[in-house]
Amino acid sequence: MSLIQQLEWRYATKKMSGEKIPADKLQNILRATQLSASSYGLQPYTILVIEDAATKEKLAPAAYNQPQIAASSQLLVFCAWTDITEKEIAAFIDNIAKTRNMDAEHLAGYKSMMEGSITKLTVEQKQIWASKQIYIALGTALVAAASEEVDATPMEGFNAQQFDEILGLAAKGLKSVVILPLGYRAADDQLASAIKVRRDQSELFQFI
Amino acid sequence: MSLIQQLEWRYATKKMSGEKIPADKLQNILRATQLSASSYGLQPYTILVIEDAATKEKLAPAAYNQPQIAASSQLLVFCAWTDITEKEIAAFIDNIAKTRNMDAEHLAGYKSMMEGSITKLTVEQKQIWASKQIYIALGTALVAAASEEVDATPMEGFNAQQFDEILGLAAKGLKSVVILPLGYRAADDQLASAIKVRRDQSELFQFI
Repeated sequence: MSLIQQLEWRYATKKMSGEKIPADKLQNILRATQLSASSYGLQPYTILVIEDAATKEKLAPAAYNQPQIAASSQLLVFCAWTDITEKEIAAFIDNIAKTRNMDAEHLAGYKSMMEGSITKLTVEQKQIWASKQIYIALGTALVAAASEEVDATPMEGFNAQQFDEILGLAAKGLKSVVILPLGYRAADDQLASAIKVRRDQSELFQFI
Repeated sequence: MSLIQQLEWRYATKKMSGEKIPADKLQNILRATQLSASSYGLQPYTILVIEDAATKEKLAPAAYNQPQIAASSQLLVFCAWTDITEKEIAAFIDNIAKTRNMDAEHLAGYKSMMEGSITKLTVEQKQIWASKQIYIALGTALVAAASEEVDATPMEGFNAQQFDEILGLAAKGLKSVVILPLGYRAADDQLASAIKVRRDQSELFQFI
């Protein structure tokens, strides 16, 4: 399938079969997500990959018992860092220096520029900004799942505060933002055959 | 190239050659972007596709004269709707009914649920929410560009207020959120050969 065909094939699956995703397909989805773009390349988020059935069952009521939580192969929980401080920026700069075999001294200007831009934001502004970066990764994960013919359901409809409590996220410096069950559509998921609805290109795009 | 290879090939191109993207490749990128997932499927955004050289030149100073604005083949400006009211929700419901050849009456419950969730948000909350949906589309556009071997540079570094003024967006009910020049890397863009820096999978993912 071409990328377009993959995107036409995918839909937000409501009912999953419980079948497990092969390890190589899961790894390709995670690798693509890891390669997502983000502002500065900072990736100010951490992604939980929940396979444990008991944990998924605990979470289901906090997502209004939508069945794809328990019937997913893995549940991805995209979490924003609760804060972005000089410490996280320093770790990022160290990663650049290590990866590119550079002296971190040469990145001092870039580091100051990042610190100046980011640390002047309020904690709430940082979380909104981190959330936007997460949505790029979410978009990438959705395409990657479709390219592996794995179903996925992007979900904002869950109680983030309850997720944070059940998963002990405050202690990890994380807040849940959006979730993505991965798995396979059940044979009787009625939405599988529904015609995809999208804004017409003549409305969605304006050419100048 | 596999999807992973495409994502390894792409990077945020700083210097573009000015070469034009063939029409079929541009259309594939736009079609993939149109197929992006969004909450409810609402797609509360409009995307400007700017090819006009004079407009790009007017915008360049509002993006700190970063050279990829003028040297892009097309500049995509992702704009959030400034408000989401019952009118936009009604148009969306009509689109579902038309696309799926249904009676809109059968969607009355879904419509009420959407109205209840969305219209209780403040205008600022709606714009943040619309922006997040835009970032899914941005992620999709980035993957689609890479799959066409077209370069792309996601940019938050521009003066959104100045963009809005230059493009007359207030009158269109739009606000610029993020921009994406599309084009081809210049032969001497030094970043093309830089090793990609990403958080290690052992830090980015937590398995449960």
